[in-house]
Amino acid sequence: MARIDYPESVGSLVEQLKALPGIGPRSAERIAIWLLQHPKSDPAALAGALTTAREEVTSCPTCGFFATASQCAVCDHPNREKTLCVVEQPTDVLPMERSGVFKGRYHCLGGRLSPLDNVTPDDLRLAGLVRRVDEEGLSEVILALGADVEGEATASYISDLLRGKCRISRLAQGLPVGGGLEHADALTLARAFEGRREH
Amino acid sequence: MARIDYPESVGSLVEQLKALPGIGPRSAERIAIWLLQHPKSDPAALAGALTTAREEVTSCPTCGFFATASQCAVCDHPNREKTLCVVEQPTDVLPMERSGVFKGRYHCLGGRLSPLDNVTPDDLRLAGLVRRVDEEGLSEVILALGADVEGEATASYISDLLRGKCRISRLAQGLPVGGGLEHADALTLARAFEGRREH
Repeated sequence: MARIDYPESVGSLVEQLKALPGIGPRSAERIAIWLLQHPKSDPAALAGALTTAREEVTSCPTCGFFATASQCAVCDHPNREKTLCVVEQPTDVLPMERSGVFKGRYHCLGGRLSPLDNVTPDDLRLAGLVRRVDEEGLSEVILALGADVEGEATASYISDLLRGKCRISRLAQGLPVGGGLEHADALTLARAFEGRREH
Repeated sequence: MARIDYPESVGSLVEQLKALPGIGPRSAERIAIWLLQHPKSDPAALAGALTTAREEVTSCPTCGFFATASQCAVCDHPNREKTLCVVEQPTDVLPMERSGVFKGRYHCLGGRLSPLDNVTPDDLRLAGLVRRVDEEGLSEVILALGADVEGEATASYISDLLRGKCRISRLAQGLPVGGGLEHADALTLARAFEGRREH
């Protein structure tokens, strides 16, 4: 007896959903069924949003953040401060903006140095970074990269690249706000200790 | 200073993804960015699969399983056995088919009795079930409903509805295969005890 399965179009939808990050086979099946059956679902709206976003959204040629015009909303802004925050990914911009602590512009590298994954300086938006530092009269470049080995290596590489051109800083490392000592790992504690300030 | 956010079309995509079951705000953002940026992503294919599935897939008018033709693949099959397996949802059909243990046809109720959620007998595919039992000359109706309070209530209701028309059975309750006694809750143990068989 031939095995009964979902109609082919349901199977294709499940396959597409399974490819999304963080969605396993069972979630993909649940989401597909929900999309096809739930009265509140709107698969046409999701399909439309996908198509629109794909057509409209590009990378800002200056900084690499998401843009729908010739420049992104940050680069297009007339009076951001003359500081530059270097981040790995365009998605790192939003948390910075939400914190409200930084009022300059951004530069998204598009990744970080990772010899194991064959990510070399040529793969990052570094030439553009040097050009911006040379041309934009910046008062400071803040390296807001991950606090892990690859983030540190990338930060060191960029520090060397920009040395003498501009003041360079890195985000502080230490205890997360609200986190007690008992939850901090040894390295975080060591960094928090090294970076201690007068009280 | 106006707050910078994602372009509107990215925001709409995140909103649509957030509405899917099991997808929170952070996953929705991660998936949207992945769809727009990852070289392996194919948002057009996902949009296409959504549109195709939505256009093609309907409910089988006989049993409620997914169909793309006038009947589903099970009802359309010429020689399934004369037994009927009553399940809550069309998604319950696939696990049964995969187990290979059942070779009859299905009847998907479309839910189960749940006074708290305002699901009454009128909301379930019950009239069709009675008609099939009267017309299809079935040897047995197997109630494969959830082993919880609402599943049991639904099974009792259907048993009363079909009494005298046909042989009626329910799936056994007991220890899951591979599960030791130490993992079984008291009620499952009680059911396994009640349903014990000669060895």
